Amino acid sequence: MAIVLDGMGSDQYPEPEVTGALTAAEELQEEIILVGQQELLEPRLKAANTKGLPVRIVHAPDVLEMGEKAVESARKKPNNSMAIGLDLVKSGEARAFVTAGNTGAAMFNGLRKLGRIKGVQRPALTAMFPVMTGYTVVLDIGANADCRPNFLQQFAVMGSIYAQKALGVENPRIGLLSNGEEAGKGNQLIKDTYHLMEEIGLNFIGNVEAKELFAGHADVVVTDGFTGNVLLKTSESVAKMLLTVLKEELMASTRTKMGAFLAKPAFGKVKKMLDPSEVGAAPLLGIDGLVFVGHGRSDAHAIHSALRAAHVAANNNLLEALRENIQSRFETTPENE
Amino acid sequence: MAIVLDGMGSDQYPEPEVTGALTAAEELQEEIILVGQQELLEPRLKAANTKGLPVRIVHAPDVLEMGEKAVESARKKPNNSMAIGLDLVKSGEARAFVTAGNTGAAMFNGLRKLGRIKGVQRPALTAMFPVMTGYTVVLDIGANADCRPNFLQQFAVMGSIYAQKALGVENPRIGLLSNGEEAGKGNQLIKDTYHLMEEIGLNFIGNVEAKELFAGHADVVVTDGFTGNVLLKTSESVAKMLLTVLKEELMASTRTKMGAFLAKPAFGKVKKMLDPSEVGAAPLLGIDGLVFVGHGRSDAHAIHSALRAAHVAANNNLLEALRENIQSRFETTPENE
Repeated sequence: MAIVLDGMGSDQYPEPEVTGALTAAEELQEEIILVGQQELLEPRLKAANTKGLPVRIVHAPDVLEMGEKAVESARKKPNNSMAIGLDLVKSGEARAFVTAGNTGAAMFNGLRKLGRIKGVQRPALTAMFPVMTGYTVVLDIGANADCRPNFLQQFAVMGSIYAQKALGVENPRIGLLSNGEEAGKGNQLIKDTYHLMEEIGLNFIGNVEAKELFAGHADVVVTDGFTGNVLLKTSESVAKMLLTVLKEELMASTRTKMGAFLAKPAFGKVKKMLDPSEVGAAPLLGIDGLVFVGHGRSDAHAIHSALRAAHVAANNNLLEALRENIQSRFETTPENE
Repeated sequence: MAIVLDGMGSDQYPEPEVTGALTAAEELQEEIILVGQQELLEPRLKAANTKGLPVRIVHAPDVLEMGEKAVESARKKPNNSMAIGLDLVKSGEARAFVTAGNTGAAMFNGLRKLGRIKGVQRPALTAMFPVMTGYTVVLDIGANADCRPNFLQQFAVMGSIYAQKALGVENPRIGLLSNGEEAGKGNQLIKDTYHLMEEIGLNFIGNVEAKELFAGHADVVVTDGFTGNVLLKTSESVAKMLLTVLKEELMASTRTKMGAFLAKPAFGKVKKMLDPSEVGAAPLLGIDGLVFVGHGRSDAHAIHSALRAAHVAANNNLLEALRENIQSRFETTPENE
């Protein structure tokens, strides 16, 4: 089988994609299908020492540029690299799709080409948050700004299956993001969701606040897409602000410059924690196919990690497990409200 | 006139309160009325060198302890230090109330004793967020988990007046927290609020995300109490996590320990940015009286800063400006929905 890689996704495309595809093909021993403009990809692939690695190109004439409105652009350009790539998953030629492109465009293309898993009310965007103990899955981080309690309940099921199948967590602890730990805290959505979480038969640990999240008390944290997006962007912005201020201050005198030089190894771990290339990519859960989205800033190492994440998820039958769980747990739920 | 200080508020009460009251009384040349258990406060005040400073004690027999449920406890103990202190504001004996105690209890006591400003739909909790350029006011950070568009509109007005009167910002830039900068982004609440923000005649700069907030693009950021609470706790938790990891790593080898020693001055600014004692306290806006709540971790310096914040707000007629603006802008709005 093969994994499709969007050759035109990352901010620096196609270099990270070409290099990442080659190193991943070597490690994973699985074919990587690079989708994008042939005239751009082919010379780079030829120039690289491919050593007979199973990497091939499928041409997609259209490019979703960064400045464009993602969804609008995806609609106008039906032959964009994501759409062509997802066709290969739909046809069964490949078992997963990976992109470092725009998440909204990936969701749009994914829904259009592959549809939703039967029974899923709304697909969700996931993200891996660096926490004190490793990583925590958070969903939804932006696909659904307005959610209903049963959406969140399904997010919990999908997040739990993902943590099990793709991350190897045995009995994932599921938390519901709220403004207080106690049951009964929260806005109306959280209050209405709480008992649904208790009923669904997961390892539900109750409401969690940011302090529990970042301390690593949960494996999966469930939230609506608006709050999840604020959570994600706040954590990124605060980290960036602190490191920027610290860097400026470290460069302010000869003494602190010397200190910064000696302390450099210590900064390494913090930098690594915040480096999206360590995680690679997170899935769009609820799409009827494996679709992984990496950070736009992905380098070749990040692309390689993203392809590995998709490979592992496919090997562990993530999609099949999601389908089964949604079907068995939500039999009587109508597909659309 | 006088400012009332809750003598039993901070985690370390009453030491920070007694010391902070004395230094503030000296700087501000205003009487500070310390409210709390006389038997606890009096010996400490006598032991300190009060130099005839205008600090006096008003006895309050009941204490709201940290382990208790704040609002329940405030209800059960009508003679708690907040309630007695707020009576002094209500009677006109003092012009502002300051506490480092529980925010929920302060809101409960404040509403019970002073009520809402006429025309205010919901009072809001404010917080001062450290950002790249200084501080940004965010409200609501927890009083109203579920908001309506007209609540947020009033938060914007109150936040703008506060930034003008108490922080000296001439034409405060008001942002609406959303999951995208463009107009039209947001959940239903934000979409329904956007045009109300445009209509109210403030310096509304549109939607802001965390990156704009922490870059200092707005002076006041408006959000519902649930999202605001997640925002506040996320920023605190991420900062704490990064500094904890960095500290651990700095202590890992002789080289990095030496680096940390030399780099110490650089860490000072980051620490200062995150130190609640620099800000002192933030007001409960919408209560018909000046009520300032500081961080539970307040030390004497923080208490002093909090008293100064209340003193400045009172001198600049914050309460009168809030009353006038609410009345003139929301004349036709019914007091309760």
